[in-house]
Amino acid sequence: MLDCAIIGGGPAGLTAGLYTSRGGLKNVSLFEMGVPGGQITKSSEIENYPGFFDSTKTGLEFMDTWQKQCFAFGLKHEMKKVDSVKKIGNHFVVILEGGETIEAKTVIVSTGAVPRRAGFKGEDEFYGRGVSTCATCDGFFYKDKPVTVLGGGDTALEEAFFLSNICSDVYVVHRRDEFRAAPPTLERAIRKENIHFITDSIIEEAVGDAMGLTGVDIRNLKTDEIRHMDNTGLFVFVGQDVKNDVLKDENENFICEMSDLGQVVVNLKMHTSIEGLFVAGDLRIDAPKQVVSAAGDGAIAALQVISYIQEQQ
Amino acid sequence: MLDCAIIGGGPAGLTAGLYTSRGGLKNVSLFEMGVPGGQITKSSEIENYPGFFDSTKTGLEFMDTWQKQCFAFGLKHEMKKVDSVKKIGNHFVVILEGGETIEAKTVIVSTGAVPRRAGFKGEDEFYGRGVSTCATCDGFFYKDKPVTVLGGGDTALEEAFFLSNICSDVYVVHRRDEFRAAPPTLERAIRKENIHFITDSIIEEAVGDAMGLTGVDIRNLKTDEIRHMDNTGLFVFVGQDVKNDVLKDENENFICEMSDLGQVVVNLKMHTSIEGLFVAGDLRIDAPKQVVSAAGDGAIAALQVISYIQEQQ
Repeated sequence: MLDCAIIGGGPAGLTAGLYTSRGGLKNVSLFEMGVPGGQITKSSEIENYPGFFDSTKTGLEFMDTWQKQCFAFGLKHEMKKVDSVKKIGNHFVVILEGGETIEAKTVIVSTGAVPRRAGFKGEDEFYGRGVSTCATCDGFFYKDKPVTVLGGGDTALEEAFFLSNICSDVYVVHRRDEFRAAPPTLERAIRKENIHFITDSIIEEAVGDAMGLTGVDIRNLKTDEIRHMDNTGLFVFVGQDVKNDVLKDENENFICEMSDLGQVVVNLKMHTSIEGLFVAGDLRIDAPKQVVSAAGDGAIAALQVISYIQEQQ
Repeated sequence: MLDCAIIGGGPAGLTAGLYTSRGGLKNVSLFEMGVPGGQITKSSEIENYPGFFDSTKTGLEFMDTWQKQCFAFGLKHEMKKVDSVKKIGNHFVVILEGGETIEAKTVIVSTGAVPRRAGFKGEDEFYGRGVSTCATCDGFFYKDKPVTVLGGGDTALEEAFFLSNICSDVYVVHRRDEFRAAPPTLERAIRKENIHFITDSIIEEAVGDAMGLTGVDIRNLKTDEIRHMDNTGLFVFVGQDVKNDVLKDENENFICEMSDLGQVVVNLKMHTSIEGLFVAGDLRIDAPKQVVSAAGDGAIAALQVISYIQEQQ
């Protein structure tokens, strides 16, 4: 039986692996298809992870040290897909794709959440090289430059406002002329001089070259007219998918308490509503979606796992 | 008026400074006497901060990059001691030692908590070089080696248990023969084969050489006999002082909700019971006392400050 099964190998899961194994647990596995690292590996530059300040390094290179460090203390990597997690009596059963089962005393779920893609041409090609889904992370790279924001919900307008304090101009492209965002959020954005709205419109294409994004083609859905804007930053906020599938039982009900947004309810100790089940990172309520905070969660969850196992001895 | 006053320059405060200034706030000051960095600067080696894995570097060198990075986006360092913080109407007044006052729209308090010193000879000399106050941080450096733990409370015995899963033997030195720790915690420790109790005793002296600690002299308070043990790790758990003074008003009452232990009550967003006042790091309830978690808190508090200021516009 595993001391701890960690499901998901982004910053939260890796840090949980580091802390559990370095904290003396002998038998901890991290379940992640492919190379661990998470969304940050798709970024071309990182400057807001404290202690890492090297603009020549990519997200993939940033995660290089994490790989070595987090697996240096006995953590095992299982390249297997987890289907679901079940508590039976006092322990957990991790059910893998294909039906194989693994028992564990504790489970940390750190599967995260992924921003939805809008689906325009060039979106994937320039993701992390001009196309971003995080204003906090990448806004500063466009200081005093114009940027485009795609979306019309609360997040899109809040992020547009955030960007308007850093960038010269923010062009908000939205497919309708009405906004889902809360009225005060919308009004604040309208009042802000350097936020401009391009309604009834979509991104037709993100265009660029080997260096990254150079501009966007915006199509007006009513006139079909295409307008090109030179613009090196495009922020896409069209929703996110919380990766909570492993927490669903065979009837598609969640095994622990969830928010309306499909995020796991936790306290400051990363406890869920089920004893022995912990969550860390973007999967939890109020997640700030930052590498350093996800890692902080991972450390907390790991220390709680160690305490929980101690208490049962 | 400052957009944000950050009080305390450890990992939480520095990260809050990075995120607020890089997030577009123009006028943010970090109040810290001396060089920012926090307790970690006193460590000789760090291996549990994800992304930093270089055993040749000290805590001071580890914090070097943080200094450059966190001040690179406009954060100002004020080498001034803050006496207290007061909310007046919709803003805050930061009162400095000597009486000078500074106005701020928001405040992040990240003054931390410091482990108490026991007061034996050699304690300061070998702090960070054999003498530690954090089993999670430093236990692994003594893998399969014997260590000494000083203290008889819950924390001491929990940390002794933590160490017993990593180290060969754990010698718990306690000045009485009764323990303040909760009975189940004590019983668990007694049951553990490699935890040994040395009661009615104190650490007389931590001894060592230029490389660090080499052993401890333990005095039995009843017989006055001194026993020397060769031992390269000594963990001291005799309480901690939460640095919450700046949150006291002129009548010594706290301005926000506190726990019985003198820690600030926060939610997952690092909100205190006072709007516009945020806390990050070891000063808060349930703090795991890890650099990465304190930094995670700092990022969260900073993002909440930015939202709070946006909402008021």
